[in-house]
Amino acid sequence: MELQMYAPILGAIGFLIAIVLYNVVKAQPVGNDRMKEISDEIHAGAMAFLGREYRVLALFVILVFFVIAMGMNFETAFAFLGGAVCSMTCGFIGMKAATRANVRTTEAARREGQAKALQVSFNGGAVMGLAVASLGLVGVGVAFIFFGGDPETVKYINGFAMGASSIALFARVGGGIYTKAADVGADLVGKIEAGIPEDDPRNPGVIADNVGDCVGDTAGMGADIFESYVGSIIATVAIAAAASPALLQKLGGGLDTQSNAILLPLALAMVGLVFSFIGIGSMKFLKGIDPAKALHYTTFVAAAGFLVAAFFVIKSLGLNVGVFYAIVAGTLAGIAIGQITEYYTASAPVARIAEASKTGPATNIINGLAVGLESCALPILIICMGIFVANHFAGLYGIGIAAVGMLATVGVTMTVDAYGPIADNAGGISEMCGLGSDVRDITDGLDAIGNTTAAIGKGFAIGSAALTALALFSAYATTVGLTSINLIEPKVVIGLFIGGMLPFLIGAMTMTSVGRAAGKMVDEIRRQFREIPGLLEGKPGDISARAALREMVLPGVVAVSAPVLVGFIIGIEALGGMLAGATLAGVLLALMMSNGGGAWDNAKKYIESGKLDGESKGGDAHMAAVVGDTVGDPFKDTSGPAMNILIKLMSVVALVIAPVLVEFWK
Amino acid sequence: MELQMYAPILGAIGFLIAIVLYNVVKAQPVGNDRMKEISDEIHAGAMAFLGREYRVLALFVILVFFVIAMGMNFETAFAFLGGAVCSMTCGFIGMKAATRANVRTTEAARREGQAKALQVSFNGGAVMGLAVASLGLVGVGVAFIFFGGDPETVKYINGFAMGASSIALFARVGGGIYTKAADVGADLVGKIEAGIPEDDPRNPGVIADNVGDCVGDTAGMGADIFESYVGSIIATVAIAAAASPALLQKLGGGLDTQSNAILLPLALAMVGLVFSFIGIGSMKFLKGIDPAKALHYTTFVAAAGFLVAAFFVIKSLGLNVGVFYAIVAGTLAGIAIGQITEYYTASAPVARIAEASKTGPATNIINGLAVGLESCALPILIICMGIFVANHFAGLYGIGIAAVGMLATVGVTMTVDAYGPIADNAGGISEMCGLGSDVRDITDGLDAIGNTTAAIGKGFAIGSAALTALALFSAYATTVGLTSINLIEPKVVIGLFIGGMLPFLIGAMTMTSVGRAAGKMVDEIRRQFREIPGLLEGKPGDISARAALREMVLPGVVAVSAPVLVGFIIGIEALGGMLAGATLAGVLLALMMSNGGGAWDNAKKYIESGKLDGESKGGDAHMAAVVGDTVGDPFKDTSGPAMNILIKLMSVVALVIAPVLVEFWK
Repeated sequence: MELQMYAPILGAIGFLIAIVLYNVVKAQPVGNDRMKEISDEIHAGAMAFLGREYRVLALFVILVFFVIAMGMNFETAFAFLGGAVCSMTCGFIGMKAATRANVRTTEAARREGQAKALQVSFNGGAVMGLAVASLGLVGVGVAFIFFGGDPETVKYINGFAMGASSIALFARVGGGIYTKAADVGADLVGKIEAGIPEDDPRNPGVIADNVGDCVGDTAGMGADIFESYVGSIIATVAIAAAASPALLQKLGGGLDTQSNAILLPLALAMVGLVFSFIGIGSMKFLKGIDPAKALHYTTFVAAAGFLVAAFFVIKSLGLNVGVFYAIVAGTLAGIAIGQITEYYTASAPVARIAEASKTGPATNIINGLAVGLESCALPILIICMGIFVANHFAGLYGIGIAAVGMLATVGVTMTVDAYGPIADNAGGISEMCGLGSDVRDITDGLDAIGNTTAAIGKGFAIGSAALTALALFSAYATTVGLTSINLIEPKVVIGLFIGGMLPFLIGAMTMTSVGRAAGKMVDEIRRQFREIPGLLEGKPGDISARAALREMVLPGVVAVSAPVLVGFIIGIEALGGMLAGATLAGVLLALMMSNGGGAWDNAKKYIESGKLDGESKGGDAHMAAVVGDTVGDPFKDTSGPAMNILIKLMSVVALVIAPVLVEFWK
Repeated sequence: MELQMYAPILGAIGFLIAIVLYNVVKAQPVGNDRMKEISDEIHAGAMAFLGREYRVLALFVILVFFVIAMGMNFETAFAFLGGAVCSMTCGFIGMKAATRANVRTTEAARREGQAKALQVSFNGGAVMGLAVASLGLVGVGVAFIFFGGDPETVKYINGFAMGASSIALFARVGGGIYTKAADVGADLVGKIEAGIPEDDPRNPGVIADNVGDCVGDTAGMGADIFESYVGSIIATVAIAAAASPALLQKLGGGLDTQSNAILLPLALAMVGLVFSFIGIGSMKFLKGIDPAKALHYTTFVAAAGFLVAAFFVIKSLGLNVGVFYAIVAGTLAGIAIGQITEYYTASAPVARIAEASKTGPATNIINGLAVGLESCALPILIICMGIFVANHFAGLYGIGIAAVGMLATVGVTMTVDAYGPIADNAGGISEMCGLGSDVRDITDGLDAIGNTTAAIGKGFAIGSAALTALALFSAYATTVGLTSINLIEPKVVIGLFIGGMLPFLIGAMTMTSVGRAAGKMVDEIRRQFREIPGLLEGKPGDISARAALREMVLPGVVAVSAPVLVGFIIGIEALGGMLAGATLAGVLLALMMSNGGGAWDNAKKYIESGKLDGESKGGDAHMAAVVGDTVGDPFKDTSGPAMNILIKLMSVVALVIAPVLVEFWK
């Protein structure tokens, strides 16, 4: 049996483990009635939102299915459908797990203390982590079995990545708008106007806010990472499938170098999944130590094991050791970007913003924007170094395989990501239910760690999106058979400029959407405060949901149609320029928005924790910092993450339509 | 006598007219003692700042002069010196005129009414406008006479553009930081803390604020436009000098097509200067009508006349009519971008931001950022269309000549730009001196028009900078003899990413500088309010000046050294990628910052003028809008404008070092 046959099997095993884990989580005690009631509301709100979202998505998917089937072929259309369904399934199961795990984490903290609470929330996250990694492997593996054997049919697999990308855009944008409209709305009314704490259940935006955390950070992030994961594998396959003799020589020079180079990404994903199991399992032994360290160690265990195994896989496939260096470059770049993200969102820059809050909201904002802008520099240099090393040792294939290396242990990195919103929710529930300070100390502690892991996770998501987009770009270029995308050609410059403009436009759309949705939310919450004191109607969540779903359509249409329009109207080379421009501007905006937003958030917390001399919660500096935090929210949770998807989606659309474009311009 | 001989002569005539005009302005009555006193303070502050700045610049210029002389050749070094001296001279005379014209405008409004006040402020601006156009023509003309005859020596002229660019960066960054630190400082303390109006002389930041308007909007803008003006001419010359036979065929195909194509930019600049005289002179007949219309008409008169004349110049030089179409494309693109800028900074988007201010500063900021991001889309599409048309009809030469066409009537467009800060100052002086409401109505009206012209002028500056940078980029590519800058090459992608990151980094540096300088300013002003009530020490200006000059060094060093480092370490093609990335990201950030800032500013004014139902000055929505305005200040007057310079400076440095790079990598 060939290697690719094992991929769906291994994936299916992983998915079964995820299901088992979900039931393990669900079997944990829920706590008292109040806790059950609130968590049921969050669960119901989240699933209701997802249901609505998926109904809209189903329409979109069916529509695009037929467009692809008519315009291109049924194979690509089915692959597209597969990618969409896998991504939606991940989001569904991940959300179910998150909204079950949150209250059980609170209860575990109450009954058994920190170690147990950490284990429950981690397991909740692991359901999402394993679902992403497993379904990715199942999907890509099955697509491989159908289409991977013949160089002529390999291109159909690209449809799978496009399916995943399309869902990701909507999940990120819709979820991001939902979560931030709820958050901004709750913050504005709750903190500024009524002067009640963030998680006070009297504030009708609070349930919506908690739902939003799951919607944005679990389902949205999951779809994003799922897309990068399958996108990087598929791009690398496409590069290998269209590799020049010179590139093959560089990779190994053997007779079966090309087929093995095509297989390697899948093999690495399998190895990565195995080590993800081990990493996730290691929490059983780590949960007693400092939770922050325990979380880090689970990823280190998986990454270290993966790298060692990757070396032997590459050797056994007869590929050059340079391919391994490319993977190491990718992995190191991912870690470095995570560290830089942590620096900008948890260190001196945060103190600088907090200090600037003393002179009011304006200087807080100016400094936060400056931190965001500044934070682009080092990650970009790291990405450049990663590209340089990967290309030096393994050509364009190296760039793809570096992305695969970064993402292979996604099972555990996604677990840590998905842990964050669960811990956040757990903290919210313990406040809303008025649990004791000992319980709150535990859940607050876990929540604080979740903020750090979220920041690192966002950096990682951007880094992997950048590498994946570049890999997809290379795959596009090799697939259309271009040997040059010449920047001296004005058409390419035009493509570059249009591409660069799109992230700004999508950023504007999503920011406006949040503003608009939050405005409606504030009006509604104010009305409820005025007319029905103490009552919790659940309507703000509803407003957010409707607004979010309406608002996600236009950016989606722009992102999907732009590459098609540029490709057919201006040309193949111009489309290449457009992808480069979009990737550049998208990565820059993603870094700026994500890091700036994170820094604002933590500057507020810095002041709240009394670290700014003479200032405390409720003081002028704190009020200024709340403004910054509110501005940062759509930055880091809506517009910024949307960039990741945008750049991958446009690249993958280009890759999918590549064969048609070549025919068209012949 | 050849055509280029006339250029310095015509330029010298223009410069003489500027000097005469300066004396006409100076001969106007100054007003009462209080007015004289305040205007003397502004004048002294402005000239003191300029003196300090120029001392720092002199050191820099001498240093770079020797670096170029040693590393390359004396010819380029002298051209560099010439460009620097011409730019500095423009700034000096323009500032002198502006700080003389401001109080005389106020007095003219008091004595003779609006028409006279308009004429005085317009004449003050015309000194700067004519200085820029004339000295550009003198400088480029002389460089032409020395180096233009031999294809081997034409490249030395590039040094002139580099000199102009270097001064522009420092003037824009230093001036921008100065003006906004003063403005933010005065605003924060004055409006928010002490609750006194913007121009209240009790606020010690007010004089500094008025000085800042001249420093940033007069000297800074002048240096920016001067750079675009000479940069576009020189880039077009370089493209023509290195033109391929195919390009020459496209341009005319005659024996002397190349020499005439080299001459054309200079000829157009001469024609443009003549029509600038006419445009400026037409104010004598227009000043009685609505001032906004009068200002527009002066530029229309010049542009229309220029276009007609350009057609005949192109015909008489035996060049194809396609070259004329490229010029028309450039001119139309400039007008269109100006109109779009006006839309975003004076129309529905402003009302949207004002409306969002009702829910507090956070939603004001979110909406302002969204407006800024959104405002990039149309100008980028316009630029793309401009590139397309220009290239379609006249190849790469078309892109250069389109920029020249946009900038040829700079004498009058710069006049209108420079009118703005004079009118602004005039309004400030009439408030500080407590003049009657009839006088204030006139000066406020002129100031309001100045804000619109400033917004259009900024859009124009960005558009022309973009085209100039692209022309310089094309000139670089043709000069180093590259036929392809291949985006599939990872080195080019690395260059693209580094280039794209730099505007974000410089943006961060300049924003931080403003924040830092403003913070110091606030502390100092607070101290003065506390310790010496009513006293005006002039120290805040001093703090701003010192901070501004210190802060301008690092961005300058980064901008100048980055192309050198990338060119020598990574390579010629990578440097090309870097220029493309920097131009893309720089233009996007410039548009976002400039338009976002302008929209915030006007949203505040919108509320102040009572247009937002139920809200007025001093109310909650207004306070929120003040925060947005304060954030927008460094956006639109420091970081945004710095982008224009950055992209041109990096391109021109690349162009200057091109011959050395070719030798190095041979």
